[in-house]
Amino acid sequence: MTPFPSEAPHRRFNPLKGEWVLVSPHRNLRPWQGKQESAAITQHPAHDPGCYLCAGNRRNSGAVNPDYRGPYVFENDFPALLSDNPSGGTQGDPLFRAANVRGTARVICFSERHDLTLAELGTPGIRKVVDCWADQIEDLGAAYDWVAIFENKGAIMGCSQPHPHGQIWASDFLPNEVAREDECQRRHLSETGTVLLVDYAAAESAQAERVVIENDDWIAVVPWWAVWPFETLVLPRRHVLRLPDLTGTERDGLADLLGRLCSRYDNLFETEFPYTMGWHGAPTAAGRWDHWQLHAHFYPPLLRSATVRKFMVGYELLSEAQRDLTPEQAAERLRSLPDQHFKSTSR
Amino acid sequence: MTPFPSEAPHRRFNPLKGEWVLVSPHRNLRPWQGKQESAAITQHPAHDPGCYLCAGNRRNSGAVNPDYRGPYVFENDFPALLSDNPSGGTQGDPLFRAANVRGTARVICFSERHDLTLAELGTPGIRKVVDCWADQIEDLGAAYDWVAIFENKGAIMGCSQPHPHGQIWASDFLPNEVAREDECQRRHLSETGTVLLVDYAAAESAQAERVVIENDDWIAVVPWWAVWPFETLVLPRRHVLRLPDLTGTERDGLADLLGRLCSRYDNLFETEFPYTMGWHGAPTAAGRWDHWQLHAHFYPPLLRSATVRKFMVGYELLSEAQRDLTPEQAAERLRSLPDQHFKSTSR
Ligand SMILES: O=P(O)(O)O[C@H]1O[C@H](CO)[C@@H](O)[C@H](O)[C@H]1O
Ligand SMILES: O=P(O)(O)O[C@H]1O[C@H](CO)[C@@H](O)[C@H](O)[C@H]1O
Repeated sequence: MTPFPSEAPHRRFNPLKGEWVLVSPHRNLRPWQGKQESAAITQHPAHDPGCYLCAGNRRNSGAVNPDYRGPYVFENDFPALLSDNPSGGTQGDPLFRAANVRGTARVICFSERHDLTLAELGTPGIRKVVDCWADQIEDLGAAYDWVAIFENKGAIMGCSQPHPHGQIWASDFLPNEVAREDECQRRHLSETGTVLLVDYAAAESAQAERVVIENDDWIAVVPWWAVWPFETLVLPRRHVLRLPDLTGTERDGLADLLGRLCSRYDNLFETEFPYTMGWHGAPTAAGRWDHWQLHAHFYPPLLRSATVRKFMVGYELLSEAQRDLTPEQAAERLRSLPDQHFKSTSR
Repeated sequence: MTPFPSEAPHRRFNPLKGEWVLVSPHRNLRPWQGKQESAAITQHPAHDPGCYLCAGNRRNSGAVNPDYRGPYVFENDFPALLSDNPSGGTQGDPLFRAANVRGTARVICFSERHDLTLAELGTPGIRKVVDCWADQIEDLGAAYDWVAIFENKGAIMGCSQPHPHGQIWASDFLPNEVAREDECQRRHLSETGTVLLVDYAAAESAQAERVVIENDDWIAVVPWWAVWPFETLVLPRRHVLRLPDLTGTERDGLADLLGRLCSRYDNLFETEFPYTMGWHGAPTAAGRWDHWQLHAHFYPPLLRSATVRKFMVGYELLSEAQRDLTPEQAAERLRSLPDQHFKSTSR
């Protein structure tokens, strides 16, 4: 039998989603003549009078932002979910099933600074964001079954404007991805008596090969089953269900880890590294959720440089996710970079 | 209960994949200040001396293409799967599972014409492509469990060069998406005694609301559960397991339907409409596959214009696919377009 990890094409299994990924390390050698993304590093002012997320400015909806400092949350002016929608109506025809949904969507500006991403906000600035995320889970979790917290960073990830911000979508249902992780984690607990991602964090910390950074309370790894080239999974070492359950020390530790991880991402190709990131914690619906472990996924699209991304297209959409370098190679590259942001060192 | 389809946010269920999609029709009204794709319609010569897919030219690998006419298939110079890989070795640790894979990858040039996409190839030209696809399934299906036939069209879909071509990846395993469709179709047959997608084609044809085009043997619909804005599903009316099982008349009918569908796609935004398309038929592994129905998926990314796409990012990657117009609205728009390609009418 081939020893794994292997340089030959192979599949790896994602026990959190219950599906496979095809790994083709040799394929990264092929020449690239396809699409190049633009990668100009834009210089932003600390406050932009034309930005509808900056403090004191008027939004599209006509509302005026307060003169905020630190994180600022407001209702999304174009929400995908509506709170006054009826709940629970369904249509049962097996070929044409449908259900009403109720929910809400908010925007979270990470700080008043138009020019600073999470990577550059500093530990105290990121700590405020962590607290704000936790408060949102508490607040919306009281009324909804699931609260999605995520950030789309960069135009290539559909982010429609540059002021550093994330989103919060709450709903009266568990979305597909959450339902799947729920099922896989539940099965692991019932089969082994232990929590899947608590076991996994300990195993990765011991093996070290896929670890990008660690501190006392947290670990960031390129998971064994990573799909995106430089995908990472951020995990607490302790068993924690949701963001609000984190202690003050753990929140500081998380802020420290996120700042260093995002700086390494930016340093990798000396660019404002695009990604989608988001939090998965135990649902806020009534029920038993001990099988859950809080975690964050980072899904960054870049593959070879600031301008060449991985495309998840034909084979990926219709057959199976496929990657072109091993998770171990990706972790090794991220590990070898400095924690300090390239912009701060060049100043 | 709200009657469905509804203009209010709701979820629809995809019985072929066993998952939901969030539909937020009101959201299409939001202004777009984000990324614009380039949409220049490039004029290509019928033969390009610098193109490594054109007849008679030398490829990256050093191989020289024959002076072919019609479809031409060759081994991919940078395959993601290798035929000399060992088969069947696995690693069983539940947190670090892996398996060897064996497979092969080919490229199919649709014709010698560097300047003609499927939309402009004409029914006889497309018929040759259909025959070639069917032959590939026969040929590779004899040695492999699954043969993936797909096309990534356009730079935005990761297509690395413009000569109209598709791909064929064969493997000794059933990829995730295929395994899921297999499970859902199998369950439907065992529960109802009928074939899921045969039932579905008949129901859509009767309802008409989501139909884009039909002919005697085929139907193209924006499925009830479409994820991409202008996604379509192409289905034979008769129960057919795989492409090689199609009669001559059915192949002509398919060529007719594909030409008209692709022309409408191009006509929608008067552009070379990008998409990923591919065939799902019964696996070629040993076994009983009566629950399968042959079908093609078209996944096009554009949303509002030739330059504004739908981004499948934060909520979509981490929670659930979300769409901004109803499948009925998308079908209505595609249905209202002419069958004749905009380039041929302007000539
Ligand atoms: O083989 P190509 O066309 O160079 O590559 C393209 O299609 C493949 C199969 O969907 C993807 O894995 C690649 O990301 C994409 O760029
Ligand atoms: O709300 P935004 O930032 O305008 O929109 C962005 O994030 C949403 C949630 O992932 C996606 O549905 C949109 O396609 C994307 O453009």
